[in-house]
Amino acid sequence: MKVGIIGASGYSGEELVRLLDAHPEVELSVVTSRSFKGRHITEAIPSLRGKACDLVFQDSDPVQLAQQETVDLFFLALPHGVASGFARPLIDAGKKVIDLSADFRLNSPELYEEYYGSSHPDIDLLKKAVYIIPELKANGWQDAQLIACPGCYPTSVQIPLVPLLRDRVMGAQGIVVNAFSGVSGAGKKVSDDFMFCARSESAKAYGLPKHRHLSEIEEQLTEAADAKVVLQFSPHLAPMRRGIIATITVPAGEGNLEALYASWREAYMDCPFVTILESGNFPDSQYVMGTNRVDISAVYDPRTKNFVITAALDNLLKGAGGQAVQIMNLWFGFSETAGLV
Amino acid sequence: MKVGIIGASGYSGEELVRLLDAHPEVELSVVTSRSFKGRHITEAIPSLRGKACDLVFQDSDPVQLAQQETVDLFFLALPHGVASGFARPLIDAGKKVIDLSADFRLNSPELYEEYYGSSHPDIDLLKKAVYIIPELKANGWQDAQLIACPGCYPTSVQIPLVPLLRDRVMGAQGIVVNAFSGVSGAGKKVSDDFMFCARSESAKAYGLPKHRHLSEIEEQLTEAADAKVVLQFSPHLAPMRRGIIATITVPAGEGNLEALYASWREAYMDCPFVTILESGNFPDSQYVMGTNRVDISAVYDPRTKNFVITAALDNLLKGAGGQAVQIMNLWFGFSETAGLV
Amino acid sequence: MKVGIIGASGYSGEELVRLLDAHPEVELSVVTSRSFKGRHITEAIPSLRGKACDLVFQDSDPVQLAQQETVDLFFLALPHGVASGFARPLIDAGKKVIDLSADFRLNSPELYEEYYGSSHPDIDLLKKAVYIIPELKANGWQDAQLIACPGCYPTSVQIPLVPLLRDRVMGAQGIVVNAFSGVSGAGKKVSDDFMFCARSESAKAYGLPKHRHLSEIEEQLTEAADAKVVLQFSPHLAPMRRGIIATITVPAGEGNLEALYASWREAYMDCPFVTILESGNFPDSQYVMGTNRVDISAVYDPRTKNFVITAALDNLLKGAGGQAVQIMNLWFGFSETAGLV
Amino acid sequence: MKVGIIGASGYSGEELVRLLDAHPEVELSVVTSRSFKGRHITEAIPSLRGKACDLVFQDSDPVQLAQQETVDLFFLALPHGVASGFARPLIDAGKKVIDLSADFRLNSPELYEEYYGSSHPDIDLLKKAVYIIPELKANGWQDAQLIACPGCYPTSVQIPLVPLLRDRVMGAQGIVVNAFSGVSGAGKKVSDDFMFCARSESAKAYGLPKHRHLSEIEEQLTEAADAKVVLQFSPHLAPMRRGIIATITVPAGEGNLEALYASWREAYMDCPFVTILESGNFPDSQYVMGTNRVDISAVYDPRTKNFVITAALDNLLKGAGGQAVQIMNLWFGFSETAGLV
Repeated sequence: MKVGIIGASGYSGEELVRLLDAHPEVELSVVTSRSFKGRHITEAIPSLRGKACDLVFQDSDPVQLAQQETVDLFFLALPHGVASGFARPLIDAGKKVIDLSADFRLNSPELYEEYYGSSHPDIDLLKKAVYIIPELKANGWQDAQLIACPGCYPTSVQIPLVPLLRDRVMGAQGIVVNAFSGVSGAGKKVSDDFMFCARSESAKAYGLPKHRHLSEIEEQLTEAADAKVVLQFSPHLAPMRRGIIATITVPAGEGNLEALYASWREAYMDCPFVTILESGNFPDSQYVMGTNRVDISAVYDPRTKNFVITAALDNLLKGAGGQAVQIMNLWFGFSETAGLV
Repeated sequence: MKVGIIGASGYSGEELVRLLDAHPEVELSVVTSRSFKGRHITEAIPSLRGKACDLVFQDSDPVQLAQQETVDLFFLALPHGVASGFARPLIDAGKKVIDLSADFRLNSPELYEEYYGSSHPDIDLLKKAVYIIPELKANGWQDAQLIACPGCYPTSVQIPLVPLLRDRVMGAQGIVVNAFSGVSGAGKKVSDDFMFCARSESAKAYGLPKHRHLSEIEEQLTEAADAKVVLQFSPHLAPMRRGIIATITVPAGEGNLEALYASWREAYMDCPFVTILESGNFPDSQYVMGTNRVDISAVYDPRTKNFVITAALDNLLKGAGGQAVQIMNLWFGFSETAGLV
Repeated sequence: MKVGIIGASGYSGEELVRLLDAHPEVELSVVTSRSFKGRHITEAIPSLRGKACDLVFQDSDPVQLAQQETVDLFFLALPHGVASGFARPLIDAGKKVIDLSADFRLNSPELYEEYYGSSHPDIDLLKKAVYIIPELKANGWQDAQLIACPGCYPTSVQIPLVPLLRDRVMGAQGIVVNAFSGVSGAGKKVSDDFMFCARSESAKAYGLPKHRHLSEIEEQLTEAADAKVVLQFSPHLAPMRRGIIATITVPAGEGNLEALYASWREAYMDCPFVTILESGNFPDSQYVMGTNRVDISAVYDPRTKNFVITAALDNLLKGAGGQAVQIMNLWFGFSETAGLV
Repeated sequence: MKVGIIGASGYSGEELVRLLDAHPEVELSVVTSRSFKGRHITEAIPSLRGKACDLVFQDSDPVQLAQQETVDLFFLALPHGVASGFARPLIDAGKKVIDLSADFRLNSPELYEEYYGSSHPDIDLLKKAVYIIPELKANGWQDAQLIACPGCYPTSVQIPLVPLLRDRVMGAQGIVVNAFSGVSGAGKKVSDDFMFCARSESAKAYGLPKHRHLSEIEEQLTEAADAKVVLQFSPHLAPMRRGIIATITVPAGEGNLEALYASWREAYMDCPFVTILESGNFPDSQYVMGTNRVDISAVYDPRTKNFVITAALDNLLKGAGGQAVQIMNLWFGFSETAGLV
């Protein structure tokens, strides 16, 4: 099976190239980049030197790409707002698409407009798209033609919370999420805020109180809880290349720690990419770096009657490119871990 | 006036040496260190090479030190549990003492025992000690002989919250504190957990849900609120040398953002070391690095009816050595900022 | 084929575990560690959570290990001076051994004594051992039973220089090597010199002028030049996790840049792990991180009549575990890149 | 005395602001920045919040600035090629000027043209300018009106080498300099090469073999040696905020280590900002960070008959703003260390 990556010179695109180039079941045959078109892939991604991968960036022209007959599946690793324009011609041409942007992650066009400041450019496609964290999705999604790959922060919150909300072992109100992201989470954009000297030795909150990822998190948690979930989401930047940790304070409600762990074990017993750490062992972004794993753990505080739940993942793998490959694996009947271990 | 530092080879001691060596009003005449005794101060603190400071570490013997007639004030920069044994002979000899450890920070011996796992070694002295964040303390404390200098996390929480609790512009229940500290916060102890390769590219929570600093924070906030405060405190390590940021989610209660800012402005109008940032401008650990400042800011989230308050300070300055010098300045009638700008 | 790793909890051991666990041709069946014996492998190496690898550390007892009948090949990832004691019983039991320590890297016992301060503990075995950088070794070594895997610095110097010395396109005298290593190069030992706060924001030379790796470099370069090579080797620490760069100033002698590049191209035309960058494009440690590659490049300075040659590799891969696996691949007839891309 | 800083929003400008704001002998009354004109100084330099300094950036208009009657001395912290245009009207108006750019550092207009690619824009002024590393300059320069403040790399090389060349305790040929700089050395320019993710975990050479600073180094060393000095200068980037280390290999010639140290001690006996470390103790960029110091040390290698000399300084202090203040202190008769300790 041949696959293509549109927008392959960003951080997520780079991880996709690396993963798909080494993937046992697919052939990476098209990579595109507007800024690098006509240049060899190792000029944008020098770490690929010496790999089998011998590709030249094509221009990112959606209509032309839609005509690539031999390519069955495209990954869109484009900025938010740009991806939807590429998805339409590909979908019309019968291609399957996994979109790593935020363009198709919400169900509600109104919510999209509230958080992104303009009406959704392709509501028809938005309705057809399926949002998948593979570990949390019942079967049936395989008939979709367009998959929205969840964001990094949202994955770090949904993996620990969705089973607990479904199983009612935590309260659905009063959730407080504090998350810390490595600098690659901001993408490869050149800005004085992401210079080495601006970010090293620097920790700070940003985007409070209404970061765009909040919309995606609340929509999914509301579905899991079957009750309106409104939460406090405070993202931060940490002086590291990659990785996200989330620390989530939730009222225990009727739950207890045993029930919480039981819910997790039940949900993730067959999931190779979720590791449940025993209470008191805290996920560390370093230990998930370079993996497609999410590590989760929880403590109960009898003083506050809260659970404090912690999670860690690699924002460019389980939070982006790795999760996209995992989705592909399940979609096309490959082993879930193919190319990911 | 001559001053001494007991335990001058740790991170806080090092900052104290640097500050007191350059201080216009005092002479640093004694530094002690068990591990470096007999060696020149620049062997433990090479960054002092070329400074006026030409001292040799003495042994850390409390009885001998108590007999140093010319020294009026001692700073104890010792590990928790060790400082109290040094304080007693110094106090008995009529010296004034500023203790940077946690030994005299609590009012309640019971609370000490709950959090530190053994009964307090000198309850008499504990009762005499005065705990001071200078910006939050009414006059009258100047008659004390022993001052407990607050911890780094506690200062980052109390500076933003105490005025708000006193003025009732926030609720006193449901407070959630997430704080991130640079690695120097752990002190200079040699441990595999604080090696370069263990901490770089690593963010993680630790010590949940009942870090020792929680006792000090709750005791002080309870006094400010005049109501029992129980909060969720989640400290984390970030891969940076120094600096703390705290992100504090609090129910707005009857308050609003204008009242919050008015409370801060009233409390800190004459405080050179507190900077109130406008809402939406988030404190950054990098910008307080090397200063004795705390930067604070707040947003209001109408969706959750919470304030999200952010604060940043340098854990070794306003969180330790700088605050100790600020206390000395006020105690002895020097300019509050002497030696600190 | 079953393989074992003795000393699997250090940095090199960790990389070996990761590589061999995922290797398509071998089964990792034994891992040992004195400090972690009896504990699951993910306790020492949490990044392996979720991998197939389900091993418990055995004790590092060489006699017992020699009796493991099903294991054909052992990797020794032990400190210098310790490895030789393990090699002997394994060799006597007919096992093949790849040693990552410095114990068997030199040909001359006298040189060993000069640099390591004591006579070599097993001169008989030293003479039987074969030192291999695969790209630089003619066939014939496959009959060896004990292979000495070269060090990280030596590989970064030999890969660029050996072909040039053999082809006489550079002078053999007056070579100056300045190399920078990430902190993992020092191994996992707990020491105040390798704490996060000691190494971040720090660059410094160390071990001048006679670092132990110099012996290995000079012995090999002398053989390549067929003339005594004496060089200046100045290693440094850089505040990064991993990676080495070497900047090598050499008199061009009769050579010119075209001849230099021709020599490299000839030497490395079939080498998947050496990338020759065009003159003016400088190897960057970041771009070889996580790979088994060495990137090399050169400029000629007409003012000084020197070549300045630069090289970069990952000290834990091409400088340790990756090179060991590459050696195994070639030794046992697997694809050279098996498990390494 | 009132002073002004033109171009105060870059890294060097920021250090100058910090130093001059706290300086006991001068008043900082003018700061300019084209990009920040009209905005408060803390908007560009948030770390200054709470300092006395209450200035608004003026536009950087040289003619207008020349008319500021009360300002006696201007510091130019502008990019190379821009500074000379500002110097002329200031000089014509009788102001004294310390220029931190490279515009007036060379004596030879031909050398300027060779290294900077265009003829010098103001050769008359170039001839009047005096280049000063204070520790290396005999008296008499005080009559100058325009001082060229040396660069960071050149200071790190001249401080150790100039006395040795003057005293003929080292050879003047075959010098090899390898230097490593923190990222702030590149200035505050926004470029994909200086993003956090591009520079962290990255060490690499750049600008070989003919970096612009080479011209300045060779011109000065040639004067010291009274013989043409041609050297190999290889600069590198290290993943740290600030700091430079230089490792310099020089033929010992007729010299020996005792003579070398004697030369240094003689040259620097009264110099508060040069620290001579004993042989075997290597300068560390971390220990000079935040100081105006240069630490130097040397070993002799009997195998190669080379000295290997190491030096460290803070590129933004002794390598820029600190040295400029030191020059001002000596020029205007203040204590050499005023405002610098």
